[in-house]
Amino acid sequence: MKKIINKPEDVVNEMLAGLQASRPDLLDVNYKKRIVTRKGVPIKNKVGILTGSGSGHEPDQVFYVGEGMLDAACAGPVFAAPTMDAIYDATKLINSGNGVLYLVKNYTGDRTNFAMASEIAEMEDIKVTTVIIDDDVAVKDSTWTAGRRGVAGAIFVYKIIGAKSAEGAPLEELKKLAEEVNINVKSMGFALTSCTTPLKGSPTFALGGDEMEIGVGLHGEPGRERTKMKTANEIVTYVMDSILQFLPLNAGEEVAVMINGLGGTPIMELYIAMGIVAKILEEKKIKIFKAYVGEYCTSLDMAGCSVSLLRVNKEYKKLLDYKVDIPYSIF
Amino acid sequence: MKKIINKPEDVVNEMLAGLQASRPDLLDVNYKKRIVTRKGVPIKNKVGILTGSGSGHEPDQVFYVGEGMLDAACAGPVFAAPTMDAIYDATKLINSGNGVLYLVKNYTGDRTNFAMASEIAEMEDIKVTTVIIDDDVAVKDSTWTAGRRGVAGAIFVYKIIGAKSAEGAPLEELKKLAEEVNINVKSMGFALTSCTTPLKGSPTFALGGDEMEIGVGLHGEPGRERTKMKTANEIVTYVMDSILQFLPLNAGEEVAVMINGLGGTPIMELYIAMGIVAKILEEKKIKIFKAYVGEYCTSLDMAGCSVSLLRVNKEYKKLLDYKVDIPYSIF
Repeated sequence: MKKIINKPEDVVNEMLAGLQASRPDLLDVNYKKRIVTRKGVPIKNKVGILTGSGSGHEPDQVFYVGEGMLDAACAGPVFAAPTMDAIYDATKLINSGNGVLYLVKNYTGDRTNFAMASEIAEMEDIKVTTVIIDDDVAVKDSTWTAGRRGVAGAIFVYKIIGAKSAEGAPLEELKKLAEEVNINVKSMGFALTSCTTPLKGSPTFALGGDEMEIGVGLHGEPGRERTKMKTANEIVTYVMDSILQFLPLNAGEEVAVMINGLGGTPIMELYIAMGIVAKILEEKKIKIFKAYVGEYCTSLDMAGCSVSLLRVNKEYKKLLDYKVDIPYSIF
Repeated sequence: MKKIINKPEDVVNEMLAGLQASRPDLLDVNYKKRIVTRKGVPIKNKVGILTGSGSGHEPDQVFYVGEGMLDAACAGPVFAAPTMDAIYDATKLINSGNGVLYLVKNYTGDRTNFAMASEIAEMEDIKVTTVIIDDDVAVKDSTWTAGRRGVAGAIFVYKIIGAKSAEGAPLEELKKLAEEVNINVKSMGFALTSCTTPLKGSPTFALGGDEMEIGVGLHGEPGRERTKMKTANEIVTYVMDSILQFLPLNAGEEVAVMINGLGGTPIMELYIAMGIVAKILEEKKIKIFKAYVGEYCTSLDMAGCSVSLLRVNKEYKKLLDYKVDIPYSIF
């Protein structure tokens, strides 16, 4: 295994130490519980926005904690849900009295632990509401999921809800908006290589030297098909066709596009994919409001990418443009 | 070879198409010459800032064209210098009459072509000045370099000079500042895997399954040493010691830190490195002004990273904080 790590069991805490060292002005970290909170929480009169999942999907999720996005995030071990206990503690930390919204990608482990935490929180009279994100069109029911998986489209939900909560929207309105955004975002990815988790130290699944997995999950879950390597045009066209079946778009409509690298993919290749997506959308007379190209929700060192399309309206556009201050930024 | 590409010979132009599609409001692209310019050039009364090099180092360099950074960049073929002709054309496009500053990483091919272009430009009475960036402390004289190589520290030079030029500084002052920043930034990297260029289709150099290359160059040039894999603590401590030999810092001084992924390295690992760098600096009572963790200057799909330290003063800090609008951003 070739990784910049010390001991496999320490990777999450050592990453959190680097995160805090990079933005000591913005974040607090509870290393025991692996909770990252925005400084100053709970924010007065604001609904707290919380997410969490296994680590290994960076920048999702702890790197989105900050002003205008998440109030806190719980980092589980690599590819394993955070504990109910940590979620409950984070809930208390960010509840100003206006309640807490859980944004949870659809994996059974995460759903279970967030559900238990919300029950305990409600016993203490903290209002908690959960929205499940399931934007992946690739497959229904998967290794760790009943229904459809939540993938990079979640970042659009965090972004829009983070902005709306900063504007002071109440819990019920945020819940409705998050559910609506989730319906309007669809995603699909593909892998050229497997990821390697630090603890296992060898690839999670076996892919031949000329094979790829279309519709892969964020932990290496099987997708729709294992095929011989295809050209960028072929892969991206197939992925776009699949997404557009679930998100029918009419000429004249507008979308936000996300080309999300899965961890081991060069920026050059992500932009080649972006060019193909833009061409397909142009042919269909669908306008690109904004393009997000880079790493948003990864799978450790997996090579490959996902495409997400979000149908936008005037409100979404305003909220997507809301300025954030989060640790994951370039300058 | 596993890459999201169509034909290897088309990768640069297809990437540029994706780049333009992602920010049609900000950029113009000349596909024949592979020149990316900021819209509205030449900017009145402003010195034009130009760079260029082989492609494969994305986001360096075309992704830094925009407001507050580069006025144009020339993209060569993968790992090969842009032509003299393209550099000369870009020079004319961005010259407002106040002259053009070339910021060139120290590779012989790039230096030669920029030098020829500047000679022709000067024959046409365009004032051109060149600053060579050579921040890599790993080795002196390398496969494609006489002297020391220019690596990710170049991004600090672009950032500071881009901001200063936006403030209206004249050519001679920018040149002096760029030279000074270059002296104050030192870098060193290491590779866990080789990169694979699209045309060759197989790894540029051979590394054993348990080996790493310390001090590697941005094209896979040999570094100081090939060793068995080390722990993150061991590698990063060695790299920091090497940098600090060339950039002696006293307790109380302040630095900007860059942890630069080389293309195939997960964000988790970059932040583990960040935590170690922060600890070493803290022990030496050197303050971190700002941390830049992510991909800034890559080598296609190479796994590994580089560390850069920039000694900052009040002016550098102000210029580093100058807001930019470039295609390489997260939100």
